[in-house]
Amino acid sequence: MSPTHEMTVPSPELAGKIANTIRFLSADGVQAAKSGHPGMPMGCADIATVLWTRFVRLDPADPMWFNRDRVVLSAGHGSMLLYSMLHFCGFLTKADLQQFRQFASRTPGHPEYGDVPGVDVTAGPLAAGFASAVGMALAEAMLAERYNTDAHKVVDHYTYVIMGDGCQMEGLSNEAASLAGHLKLGKLIALYDDNEISIEGSTDLAFTENVNARYEALGWHVQDIDGHDHEAIAAAIQAAQAVTDKPSLIVAHTTIGRGAPTLAGSAKVHGEPLGEAELTAAKAAIGWPAESFHVPADVETLFAGRRKQWAAMRKAWDRTFGAYLAAEAERGAELARLIAGRLPDGWEQARPTFTPADTMATRASGGKVLNAFAAVVDSLAGGSADLEPSNKTLVTKGKYATWIAPGRYAGRNIHFGVREHAMGHVANGLALHGLRPYCATFMVFHDYMRPALRLAALMHLPTVFIYTHDSIFVGEDGPTHQPIEHHAAIRAIPRIELLRPCDANEVAYAWQHALARADGPTCLSLTRQNLPTLDRTKYGAAEGVLKGGYILDDEAGADLVLIASGSEVHLAIDAAALLRKKGRKLRIVSMPGLKLFAAQPKAYRDTVLPPALTRRVVLEAGIVQGWEGLLGGEGLFIGLDDFGASGPMAVLAEQFGLTAPKVVQRIEKAGL
Amino acid sequence: MSPTHEMTVPSPELAGKIANTIRFLSADGVQAAKSGHPGMPMGCADIATVLWTRFVRLDPADPMWFNRDRVVLSAGHGSMLLYSMLHFCGFLTKADLQQFRQFASRTPGHPEYGDVPGVDVTAGPLAAGFASAVGMALAEAMLAERYNTDAHKVVDHYTYVIMGDGCQMEGLSNEAASLAGHLKLGKLIALYDDNEISIEGSTDLAFTENVNARYEALGWHVQDIDGHDHEAIAAAIQAAQAVTDKPSLIVAHTTIGRGAPTLAGSAKVHGEPLGEAELTAAKAAIGWPAESFHVPADVETLFAGRRKQWAAMRKAWDRTFGAYLAAEAERGAELARLIAGRLPDGWEQARPTFTPADTMATRASGGKVLNAFAAVVDSLAGGSADLEPSNKTLVTKGKYATWIAPGRYAGRNIHFGVREHAMGHVANGLALHGLRPYCATFMVFHDYMRPALRLAALMHLPTVFIYTHDSIFVGEDGPTHQPIEHHAAIRAIPRIELLRPCDANEVAYAWQHALARADGPTCLSLTRQNLPTLDRTKYGAAEGVLKGGYILDDEAGADLVLIASGSEVHLAIDAAALLRKKGRKLRIVSMPGLKLFAAQPKAYRDTVLPPALTRRVVLEAGIVQGWEGLLGGEGLFIGLDDFGASGPMAVLAEQFGLTAPKVVQRIEKAGL
Repeated sequence: MSPTHEMTVPSPELAGKIANTIRFLSADGVQAAKSGHPGMPMGCADIATVLWTRFVRLDPADPMWFNRDRVVLSAGHGSMLLYSMLHFCGFLTKADLQQFRQFASRTPGHPEYGDVPGVDVTAGPLAAGFASAVGMALAEAMLAERYNTDAHKVVDHYTYVIMGDGCQMEGLSNEAASLAGHLKLGKLIALYDDNEISIEGSTDLAFTENVNARYEALGWHVQDIDGHDHEAIAAAIQAAQAVTDKPSLIVAHTTIGRGAPTLAGSAKVHGEPLGEAELTAAKAAIGWPAESFHVPADVETLFAGRRKQWAAMRKAWDRTFGAYLAAEAERGAELARLIAGRLPDGWEQARPTFTPADTMATRASGGKVLNAFAAVVDSLAGGSADLEPSNKTLVTKGKYATWIAPGRYAGRNIHFGVREHAMGHVANGLALHGLRPYCATFMVFHDYMRPALRLAALMHLPTVFIYTHDSIFVGEDGPTHQPIEHHAAIRAIPRIELLRPCDANEVAYAWQHALARADGPTCLSLTRQNLPTLDRTKYGAAEGVLKGGYILDDEAGADLVLIASGSEVHLAIDAAALLRKKGRKLRIVSMPGLKLFAAQPKAYRDTVLPPALTRRVVLEAGIVQGWEGLLGGEGLFIGLDDFGASGPMAVLAEQFGLTAPKVVQRIEKAGL
Repeated sequence: MSPTHEMTVPSPELAGKIANTIRFLSADGVQAAKSGHPGMPMGCADIATVLWTRFVRLDPADPMWFNRDRVVLSAGHGSMLLYSMLHFCGFLTKADLQQFRQFASRTPGHPEYGDVPGVDVTAGPLAAGFASAVGMALAEAMLAERYNTDAHKVVDHYTYVIMGDGCQMEGLSNEAASLAGHLKLGKLIALYDDNEISIEGSTDLAFTENVNARYEALGWHVQDIDGHDHEAIAAAIQAAQAVTDKPSLIVAHTTIGRGAPTLAGSAKVHGEPLGEAELTAAKAAIGWPAESFHVPADVETLFAGRRKQWAAMRKAWDRTFGAYLAAEAERGAELARLIAGRLPDGWEQARPTFTPADTMATRASGGKVLNAFAAVVDSLAGGSADLEPSNKTLVTKGKYATWIAPGRYAGRNIHFGVREHAMGHVANGLALHGLRPYCATFMVFHDYMRPALRLAALMHLPTVFIYTHDSIFVGEDGPTHQPIEHHAAIRAIPRIELLRPCDANEVAYAWQHALARADGPTCLSLTRQNLPTLDRTKYGAAEGVLKGGYILDDEAGADLVLIASGSEVHLAIDAAALLRKKGRKLRIVSMPGLKLFAAQPKAYRDTVLPPALTRRVVLEAGIVQGWEGLLGGEGLFIGLDDFGASGPMAVLAEQFGLTAPKVVQRIEKAGL
């Protein structure tokens, strides 16, 4: 497809009218809601007009069309700008606009992916949309190189982002821009609404850097334009499209709240309604009808025509795609599967099985399992924030088992650099584009990327977050590198499942669960240190991972249950052996997925943890938070309640009471 | 004091020997520990040699000397570099070095503030040290402008940072650098160990931006040097000192692991011991004695002399400070108090009292309380990440009640910009320099700055984190802006206290607690929405906040207790009123500080929540995690278990069951 396409460009007069329609739809929406952000949509109305009337490609009948241009409103508070456009695209009705910010409407306060047709990513947390857009643009490049042929360009679209000053100030955007510049993502085009106003006043109060020069330093193509000059906007987008080996930043100088007679250009117009008087005066000043949500007839007509042209584009692509499927049986099937969000039939059979001879860290078995699944799941792609040798996330064999690099995108291994936060959002962007992404770092550095997990959960994305070095057993690196509160903090995020497998076979099922889960993110918590692989002829089947928790070991008359996750399962087994020597009868429960277990039917849960079995001990090398429910009033938690320390693993185990003899002492002292 | 001072500069030969001593002390330390990072110290040995032999000012007898130059090892994994220097400074013994990475040693894997004399900030999480250093440099500028006189420069030092490629890749460093450049912090000098090696290999694999140009765009003075050329290093530091209106970045090109015959310049030397063979060969190659931890006699002698000169510097400052105290009674007392880490006597009396007529959001009362305490606590300083009008964090009256701006540092109000992550670490840097900092944003954006809270907790810093808009009652902004899991996630961090006051008087005590707490961070969770101010003639005294939880309302024969925090206390009161109409007898407990309450003596806790009172209902508009322990087996939690939604507050209350009638229904349905 050509960068710009055969669309009717509206006359300057009509284009101006479209921009004003956006302004007043937005201001009316905020006014009706009695809350919201009119300033950004009014300032960006010209940019949106040019973008959607001359460039953006979509299917009015299918907001999820695979080859649509992505448009990410990273400055998500300006949601009425996007909703106005989605109305013109045919995705939202005028009634939707009138329900702005009302409960269960299709026009929530910030754009919500999945709830609003045509929203490509949930945005609001600043710069997150931009970073996800980098992931989308990377996905486009990957899939284009994998699947396009000379005869059939089936993956070929732009990723546009609209970002504000706030997005630029967030370090996240610098990480994402640095990565995008490095990777030379030429089809990523960011429009920066540079209105020089932030909430505390002029951006000069806190932000005097040279953004243009910074992006040039990051390897971007940078242009500087008047964001109200339609021809300048169009020319800049065309120039951006013409530069194919660099992402583009278009710095568009705008006036926030443009059109508001007294408030334009001030911080006051950012985050609250204009007020009836200002809004009325704004309309009167240009002779705009006073009625709310007015759309002039010629604007309606223009977009009605545009929707037909858009529909024709989609049809043209359908023909191309049909021909592609006919010509490229294998690749076509692969791409069709990715578009449908399916994994290959029988992919679960790739799950490897480990034997008791396989003593290894769960990060190591994690790497083996990842490779086994990657051999059949072509859409699996990802990497680490510069810790691949430690996280063991390199896919070395089979299809696409190469590194992605500037200009070479057909691989599946990504060097994210030391950019945990961007990594998470880029991975989400890959997921939004149909890939099955994973990303990895040390578990303590989850803290650097937490917003990405929250957005993955909000968007129901199947991103897999791999966190290795998951406890004080990291050892000598000390407390800055030792997770203590992280399991609890990750479990706290709604919809996130954290799995902390105890051995290689549990790792295999944990990965299987993560891949089977299409509607939400999964975290894998993996050890640095070696662990035995349990002999499953003696212990409960590792498949129990799929239920979150299961009986690992049991005996008749057990009146004490040890519940543990991850490496502490082995501590439980060792402590149980000592207790059994003293005549105790025990059950051991492996609980890799506390939330997953809680989601099982009560009947199953009561089988694993009978209510009458009140002598319960939980072992996890972290804080108790989250376990109290299982413990009940009589239970004992053996873990940590403060930060760890630097020292060899075995010394730490001794010092923090995480050895089998000390566990036995604690249990006996508690009278359990 | 002059930028460089009257110190004996070692001969080039001796300086080279010092550098090699650092290299081998570091490599020996890592080898003995069987883990650690030799590459960075070996690569930076020349930089450290020049920095400490020609520039750094300190007191060998007092690592906490107030006017010392701060040296922050932001690349904290290179800890043996710093420990080697701290040995030369007289802070660590050779025996300490030999205990590297052992439990309870003074030489943990990463530099730990408080545990290691001479360590100015805990580092390891990349770029965090750099961002804290920005705070220290800002503090120096603030205190210099507040307290120095023409006759007496009592605050006058540099802040040096050593940072690596990893620090540069983190978005955090860009935020901090952008802020430092904006504020023109001329006495901040960052030495960038540009060794072009990251863990996955050459930095080129992920990081090809032009760092120099980026920093120039951020308003920094940038130099590019050979990091092994002592004269070039010295000249660059002098040039950096000479530029007083810009922070300086010295890009020092180094070879990682310099001196290791086969591993130098490779990723292999980054994070594991050289191995005996390589280490022996390295020593042999330059005729270094084979013994471990060897320090040549002339190196010992040089530093023995240097320690005398350092001690003399401190004495000179003591004289200056003595004269200052004599000449400047009021300012002197103020500064002396800050140095001692004390608040003015009787500061608690500034706590305001509110009456039931004061209906206001707790963010609003928070602003009033902050202003009341700021009137007497001169060291209180801070601001918001561009949300001051929403967070209500502006101090408008009294001393220092101005905005800090480039070149004007005597104020106490800081425009942090939309840089939550840097804000947290900058605030920590202020705390490390004796100020009592606060910083603010919306509670959901805690996620952007979580590593700063963890480090504040690790370092026992009294940073106050103000989080407003603390629940779904944010309303229309929707789920991206509504905290659900945040209370649990914040409480999870060891040593952090989260206080969620229910009204203006609880806010006053919460602030009092935060200020009284000298050894750890406090989070204040405050509402967007208005709340009544309770009539304390009818309810328990708000002073109960200081114990975390207290009886707010009670009656004889109460067999049901409602426990709530923040805005839900009023929901509990309303629900109680309905239940009482039905003849129920209740107790209401306000629980603003769950962890603080848990830290009270059992006798007190049992008074508030008698074990026999098992009919318990907890109300908090968030997840249950963390409350299960108080609830017991029979209790009922009324909160949320998934994300919120966009809509007016009252509609959300209805939809999510957080109205008094719905609470009553739930309680009755549960049979409580």
